[in-house]
Amino acid sequence: MMLTKVDRIQKDIESLAQFSCVEGIGCTRFTYTKEFRQAADYIIAEMKGAGLEVREDPVGIIIGRLEGKNPNAPVIMTGSHFDTVKTGGRFDGPAGVVTALETARVLHEEGFVPECPIEFVALPEEEGARFGGGLFGSRAICGQLKPNELETYKDWDGVSIAEAMKGYGLDPSKAAESQRKPGDIGLFLELHIEQGPILENNKIDVGIVDAIVGLKTFVVTVKGRSDHAGTTPLNMRADTMLAAARAITAGTDKALELNDGTVVTFGRVETKPGAFNIVAKETVFNIDCRSRGLESVDTVIAAVRESLEKSEAENPGLSFEMFESLKANPVPMKPEVKALLHAKAEECGISTMELLSGAGHDAMIMGSLCDVAMVFVPSKDGRSHVPEEWTDYEDLQNGIEIVCRTIKELASK
Amino acid sequence: MMLTKVDRIQKDIESLAQFSCVEGIGCTRFTYTKEFRQAADYIIAEMKGAGLEVREDPVGIIIGRLEGKNPNAPVIMTGSHFDTVKTGGRFDGPAGVVTALETARVLHEEGFVPECPIEFVALPEEEGARFGGGLFGSRAICGQLKPNELETYKDWDGVSIAEAMKGYGLDPSKAAESQRKPGDIGLFLELHIEQGPILENNKIDVGIVDAIVGLKTFVVTVKGRSDHAGTTPLNMRADTMLAAARAITAGTDKALELNDGTVVTFGRVETKPGAFNIVAKETVFNIDCRSRGLESVDTVIAAVRESLEKSEAENPGLSFEMFESLKANPVPMKPEVKALLHAKAEECGISTMELLSGAGHDAMIMGSLCDVAMVFVPSKDGRSHVPEEWTDYEDLQNGIEIVCRTIKELASK
Repeated sequence: MMLTKVDRIQKDIESLAQFSCVEGIGCTRFTYTKEFRQAADYIIAEMKGAGLEVREDPVGIIIGRLEGKNPNAPVIMTGSHFDTVKTGGRFDGPAGVVTALETARVLHEEGFVPECPIEFVALPEEEGARFGGGLFGSRAICGQLKPNELETYKDWDGVSIAEAMKGYGLDPSKAAESQRKPGDIGLFLELHIEQGPILENNKIDVGIVDAIVGLKTFVVTVKGRSDHAGTTPLNMRADTMLAAARAITAGTDKALELNDGTVVTFGRVETKPGAFNIVAKETVFNIDCRSRGLESVDTVIAAVRESLEKSEAENPGLSFEMFESLKANPVPMKPEVKALLHAKAEECGISTMELLSGAGHDAMIMGSLCDVAMVFVPSKDGRSHVPEEWTDYEDLQNGIEIVCRTIKELASK
Repeated sequence: MMLTKVDRIQKDIESLAQFSCVEGIGCTRFTYTKEFRQAADYIIAEMKGAGLEVREDPVGIIIGRLEGKNPNAPVIMTGSHFDTVKTGGRFDGPAGVVTALETARVLHEEGFVPECPIEFVALPEEEGARFGGGLFGSRAICGQLKPNELETYKDWDGVSIAEAMKGYGLDPSKAAESQRKPGDIGLFLELHIEQGPILENNKIDVGIVDAIVGLKTFVVTVKGRSDHAGTTPLNMRADTMLAAARAITAGTDKALELNDGTVVTFGRVETKPGAFNIVAKETVFNIDCRSRGLESVDTVIAAVRESLEKSEAENPGLSFEMFESLKANPVPMKPEVKALLHAKAEECGISTMELLSGAGHDAMIMGSLCDVAMVFVPSKDGRSHVPEEWTDYEDLQNGIEIVCRTIKELASK
């Protein structure tokens, strides 16, 4: 017997999708816009209906609080973001917000009084689709906003975060007050869509995240010489595209050989001058490598570097530079919470598996402040950030059910 | 003792460079422009000074004829083109035109009367830099102009070949009269800069071309899926850039393994959507493969195709298309003329080696009408089509000397 109700979950998702999903175009709800306000109003109304004490914090984070018997105990927090990418789907973000709403309703119906406070949250600007920074709400909570970020990060019209906040009814000079003190929050538990194909391919109901992967990204520039495609023998070239192709192959083969879930992506490759009959004198490509441990990431990057060094040694005139553009440490999930999530799933006959989160989430940032845990629900065809993004409501309910039960148990002691 | 004079050769090159080479910018002399007219006038004057009977044919080919004792014997023709690419060098084309001028002067000084007629020629629009077609003069001689080419091929201002011809003083309705009858020309002997590094690297004075390579070019489109760089395991992707990198590596390795001078170039690679954190759903790349024989070209192309087929089989959702955009058969050079060129070089203490012409030339087209032979002179650092294109005048003289002596001997019997 489920505590949660699938019809309420469906109504939440569909209500939020009104602001503003367009058939065939997808959902676009940028932070601090009119649609964002409409969605916020819906969330606030639902929270109030579930008996929560609701406030919007200085950066627009919606916080619905269920007071605990011990108001000073570390808070259990659950929720996710409610902004979207441009022409994305209706589940990325809202799935976790609806988890908060439905959990609050269940606890309210039961008249549940927790030992510690529980906060149900809806966060802004996780995607960074309007202002470019991303993970904005969780960074505000963790005191990780950058100096002058509110003034210098701007949208397509040149509107700064600060200006947009004012238009939304917030006072940007108070943004720092969003920061929570260490010890204030005990656990952040986030449900999110998987955004990948693993659960669906394995026919598993719910994923319990083991860790959010560590990540390094690089921009690689290979420089060589523009030679004539017909008149320059292969062994006299400094062919940057060939060097890049060998490096891409070597890096991927190393990741496959590790066989530990490490992924590496070379999504952008550009050749100059880019003519069919001229050897490319410059090739620029990006590396995005993620794994449970940065050691594996470093192993893959080293394989790319060794391949390029070999090309450099064998081809006079060829050289390369690798610039590390991003680095994030892996964030492990709290083992005791993971165990409890598994146990609650078993109670309900819901199948689970552990997996890595290959994408960054608000929980990744929150990991710097408190314990974190994450639950994934299946993504149809593994797709997200596209209009076709989909999770069946029953699948979403499965995830919400175990989050709800886990929070209830954690808040009972 | 050389028959040719290096000071006259230098003067020719420098005179033609007046129309219009700009220091640091290079030479730009597009067909049928004012600069082209000025260069043509210089060539015509030099030919007349060398006692030739000079005419401009219907497409503006300058033909200086030294009549033979047997006016109906097959003609020996020598020369090259005098148009340039945009901001190119002073030698690509003119080196062969100056060969014609200096040879004519030497024969004139000697009062040489050939058995067969000798025609010294300067051709337009080999590069195709103004109208896009290229090899225009030799195609006109061989009857290979395309239907409506004069009307449909236009320059950057929308000026058609026909309109430009009128402005240059030619009657485009007579263009077909440029065609020469089979048997009319016996041999086309062209000197050209190597445009590659082989002679310089081997410290050889002159190259005797063995064959102009055969060529195939392809446009390859690999289609797959845009997956998230973090959430999609490597074995569940349809990664088009990885498939392309493997194919590029496989094709190049096959060409290296053949070790017969086959070259393959992947000068243009484009990824879509081209983001660092999204698996490329589409990658388009070009193949340019050249060899002495098309069998070797086909072997390399097959290696690329096999690699792509393997990727297709191993990665559901991945597919590819290969479109053959260009094909040219190899053109062998006349063995007797090659042998004579070697012998004449040996007479003069000029070192030679045989090499392939990896680039197309007017001689390639002329091969459809008559015997052909080519001589290469060294290109500094192997470079061409750039302002830095350079051949030392003594190196150029070496090539001209053996062409001159070869023509003299061939025309003596």
